[in-house]
Amino acid sequence: MNSLPIKELIARHRPGHALEQDFYRRADVFEKEVDSIFLKSWILAGHQSQVPEAGDFFVFEIAGESIIIVRSDAGRINALLNVCRHRGSRVCLEEQGHTARFVCPYHAWNYDLNGELQAAPQVMDTLDRDQYPLRRARLENFLGLLFINFDPDAEFAPIASDFGGVLAPYDLPHTKLAHQESYRIRSNWKLAVENYCECYHCVPAHREFAVGHGRARPEGNVAELRQEVLSRAQSCGLSAKMTQKGWKNAEAVGMDRYVDRYPLLKGHVSGSRDGKPVAPLLGTVSGFDGGATEFQLGPISYGLVYCDYVVLYRFTPVQADETTCEVFWLVRETAVEGEDYDLQELIWMWDVTTRADKRIIEDNRRGVNSRFFVPGPFTPMEYYTQAFTEWYLDVLQT
Amino acid sequence: MNSLPIKELIARHRPGHALEQDFYRRADVFEKEVDSIFLKSWILAGHQSQVPEAGDFFVFEIAGESIIIVRSDAGRINALLNVCRHRGSRVCLEEQGHTARFVCPYHAWNYDLNGELQAAPQVMDTLDRDQYPLRRARLENFLGLLFINFDPDAEFAPIASDFGGVLAPYDLPHTKLAHQESYRIRSNWKLAVENYCECYHCVPAHREFAVGHGRARPEGNVAELRQEVLSRAQSCGLSAKMTQKGWKNAEAVGMDRYVDRYPLLKGHVSGSRDGKPVAPLLGTVSGFDGGATEFQLGPISYGLVYCDYVVLYRFTPVQADETTCEVFWLVRETAVEGEDYDLQELIWMWDVTTRADKRIIEDNRRGVNSRFFVPGPFTPMEYYTQAFTEWYLDVLQT
Amino acid sequence: MNSLPIKELIARHRPGHALEQDFYRRADVFEKEVDSIFLKSWILAGHQSQVPEAGDFFVFEIAGESIIIVRSDAGRINALLNVCRHRGSRVCLEEQGHTARFVCPYHAWNYDLNGELQAAPQVMDTLDRDQYPLRRARLENFLGLLFINFDPDAEFAPIASDFGGVLAPYDLPHTKLAHQESYRIRSNWKLAVENYCECYHCVPAHREFAVGHGRARPEGNVAELRQEVLSRAQSCGLSAKMTQKGWKNAEAVGMDRYVDRYPLLKGHVSGSRDGKPVAPLLGTVSGFDGGATEFQLGPISYGLVYCDYVVLYRFTPVQADETTCEVFWLVRETAVEGEDYDLQELIWMWDVTTRADKRIIEDNRRGVNSRFFVPGPFTPMEYYTQAFTEWYLDVLQT
Repeated sequence: MNSLPIKELIARHRPGHALEQDFYRRADVFEKEVDSIFLKSWILAGHQSQVPEAGDFFVFEIAGESIIIVRSDAGRINALLNVCRHRGSRVCLEEQGHTARFVCPYHAWNYDLNGELQAAPQVMDTLDRDQYPLRRARLENFLGLLFINFDPDAEFAPIASDFGGVLAPYDLPHTKLAHQESYRIRSNWKLAVENYCECYHCVPAHREFAVGHGRARPEGNVAELRQEVLSRAQSCGLSAKMTQKGWKNAEAVGMDRYVDRYPLLKGHVSGSRDGKPVAPLLGTVSGFDGGATEFQLGPISYGLVYCDYVVLYRFTPVQADETTCEVFWLVRETAVEGEDYDLQELIWMWDVTTRADKRIIEDNRRGVNSRFFVPGPFTPMEYYTQAFTEWYLDVLQT
Repeated sequence: MNSLPIKELIARHRPGHALEQDFYRRADVFEKEVDSIFLKSWILAGHQSQVPEAGDFFVFEIAGESIIIVRSDAGRINALLNVCRHRGSRVCLEEQGHTARFVCPYHAWNYDLNGELQAAPQVMDTLDRDQYPLRRARLENFLGLLFINFDPDAEFAPIASDFGGVLAPYDLPHTKLAHQESYRIRSNWKLAVENYCECYHCVPAHREFAVGHGRARPEGNVAELRQEVLSRAQSCGLSAKMTQKGWKNAEAVGMDRYVDRYPLLKGHVSGSRDGKPVAPLLGTVSGFDGGATEFQLGPISYGLVYCDYVVLYRFTPVQADETTCEVFWLVRETAVEGEDYDLQELIWMWDVTTRADKRIIEDNRRGVNSRFFVPGPFTPMEYYTQAFTEWYLDVLQT
Repeated sequence: MNSLPIKELIARHRPGHALEQDFYRRADVFEKEVDSIFLKSWILAGHQSQVPEAGDFFVFEIAGESIIIVRSDAGRINALLNVCRHRGSRVCLEEQGHTARFVCPYHAWNYDLNGELQAAPQVMDTLDRDQYPLRRARLENFLGLLFINFDPDAEFAPIASDFGGVLAPYDLPHTKLAHQESYRIRSNWKLAVENYCECYHCVPAHREFAVGHGRARPEGNVAELRQEVLSRAQSCGLSAKMTQKGWKNAEAVGMDRYVDRYPLLKGHVSGSRDGKPVAPLLGTVSGFDGGATEFQLGPISYGLVYCDYVVLYRFTPVQADETTCEVFWLVRETAVEGEDYDLQELIWMWDVTTRADKRIIEDNRRGVNSRFFVPGPFTPMEYYTQAFTEWYLDVLQT
């Protein structure tokens, strides 16, 4: 196809403007992204309440990789690559379950919950079993949120330090997964992240969200409201501390993060159909202050914490032209479905909003694929999306 | 894959024979065709009766591009690229409809019916709106037939000059679209054009057509009949003028055209199940002379005009291995369906024939994809298909 | 993608270990395999009982090629390429049937059952018909089994010589096709052949097979049993002769073969649900000796002969990531379904086993595609799979 070399694509980028088409389509660009970004980044895998007991496991996939998240006998949660060390079969075929061992369905090589090879038929005496554990990714259980990183040297401590205090009042270790939903998006992952990172589209495209969330308004319009919320926050036991270490502000690729508290609008106190609470207050939060805490942790994982529930997002690259948006809803661990919360009401806001985003992103993809697409200028409300693209081009260059 | 360079493929072509497999499969060949042919050619978009009122629009797609055909407030018909000048979303999601504005569903950038940017939220004061109109293709409304060209410098006048007189008696501006049908063909577009450009296959493959159309016979066999029809034509108010400026005879790529009147057979006076009329006479045509006028306008657009109806064809490249055959049936504007014509009878001939061609072309593709395919010799009745392939190789070389 | 050149891939192969991921995925590797292996190898096409009469034909496909197997008027069975010599259409659209001629559905070029061009409309007088026969593959009817080879110089005599005596008692020319089944496997063909060539997986994955077949046990464990069977074989009229000319032991690419007789277990005398006979004894076999004869003929065709039925396998490459496993069941020609054998019982063993293999192979593919896949060591029971991979790398290098 005589594709332009990636370096030249980067060199001709027009500052302040969206990315060119090639970045969203080319398989070689995608493979470079896997190497430069996804194999080094913190990625949300799920929540500890998905694996309460030793032997509980679930599997998730990203960019063709399958990772088993399993709680070992010692209670530690492991992230094991789902690839037999013999001839490479998947060793775990179920999406979730409970097991004492992973026995490869091909030749019965047998791994314990830490991925150590325990048995291999016919070659028990001759094989050096220590040489063949399942390969693993790092896993951090941060307040019950499970983050993995394929890079063994990746740092997590600075993230924990920035986030620990802010998130403490919600007592996330004592939340549980109330619902999880997978939205398949036919587009490159960057169109999804670019969409998530700006709220310029919220008024035109997310009526349900825009009516109650200050994020949908230009900062100047809600500055006063923000101050009010932040001053109320403390009385509800919430922190007003912000962090802004996303994209080029992060210490290293894959440690991107921010945390921000913004105001809800017109009597809304949660992200719900009518703005009213949909679940019991989280942790030690003592009341609804009218705000919401938004955070990023790594390039494709995001969260939004209301006083009564948490929604987590992961924009999972599948291949150059396909992404899965995985959404997790968390509520207080002791909350009982049907009594303390109605599941349909709990998920309403972010289900309707994510469905709309799926459509928007796919329509964006269609136009970006045109030979006549000329990337246009970012506007002020898209500053964080613009910051993403600038960071992205830097990372891709290295 | 170590594909042969296109130049070498061309160099080893055997004159008088069909094209080699690579021309029908390779994505790089297809991209070169888009650049060298489709971005410079006149292409049938549709008929003015599809957009009678200001604000009426329809969208059509070719080679991944989406073009909005819309009538402006001033009555002019525009061809606008369906790509927002901001971040590239489709601005129009409906296939057809009526609107006062195109409002991008992503961030609500707002374009008028001429594609001028009218509004963009939050940046009305800072954005130079004149810089961001929807991009456009040229559009010629020729006797009500809408032709577009992505090349702003393409000429149309010589075509109009050749065709105007011949087509005048049919009064095409006063016809209307009675039916439109889309036939998806899994093959390269050239196998479809090659099929359309010869009638050597008509006797074996199109019994319904061959029984009534002189085109299905070798020229020598119907020469006398042709003379009879041409002499009768004048008395019916029809022109006997021919044009032959297809392929290498055209002034430039994309201006290919011919017009020819040939005889119908054995009492047939129209293209119908029994050869009898299926609709009221067109324009000023005063009777059925027993002939049909065939024309080409650009490389992928063709027409066949009977005394009572018109059928238009567009072989729309989708990707290297996929084509859509779009067929339009036109009748006199004042004709009333159910009274003046029966729709099923009107479309019968070209529906059954196009379905057969779809099958034929797809079976052709399967064999052409064989490693054992050796392009065979063209026969006399395939002269125009041969002329197409010779022109094609010339164009591809430049 | 900056793929590693094939030579470098081969050079970095680690002896004694499985192949790397690239060999199973890359389209350029697959095309090289077609050239170096499939266009030179003996390939099972089917059985003569599929074309009992002159004019009977069936079509089979491999790597995008379509081959017509047809019995001519003289009784000879031909393998004709299903590609018209004119413009390349398929000439035969049915999967099987009976015909006097192959008339191309496009322009009615007309071929006899030997592929000779008999007629071509309009050009009968000018075309040199001798120049345009359907192209053909070689076909060997070996004991009723039909093998093709695209290479006109391929030798078959040494294979016939090795196999003739061993297979004689089964009188394969007087068997018939009782059933044929096609299993689509989403994986490269090598993962299927690697699976077939080892029985290390039989105990874990094929309970139904392992309970009755000595092949599922390490050789040492069944050596005594094997001797018993071989000594009993003669009294049943069977040969104990072995051949081992597979992979690097073959005289040339595509002549790979072995024949081996191994013991059945615990009172099993056939490959059936309960180990009991499922069809009348074949040929001159006078009793059930408790063994089964396994053979290979070419790289992708295999057979297993019980005393009462034959099962044949072909692992048909479709494209780099897709394979069809075709299975044929043969019984004595005179056996009557419903009386002499129950079809469901006849096919039970190899249907259940092939379905399991399809799943295993597809799970293997998923893991092999991981960036974290490191090819592991072959074990003793995988010696023949290892021999395959070593041969494969040699062939690919040339």
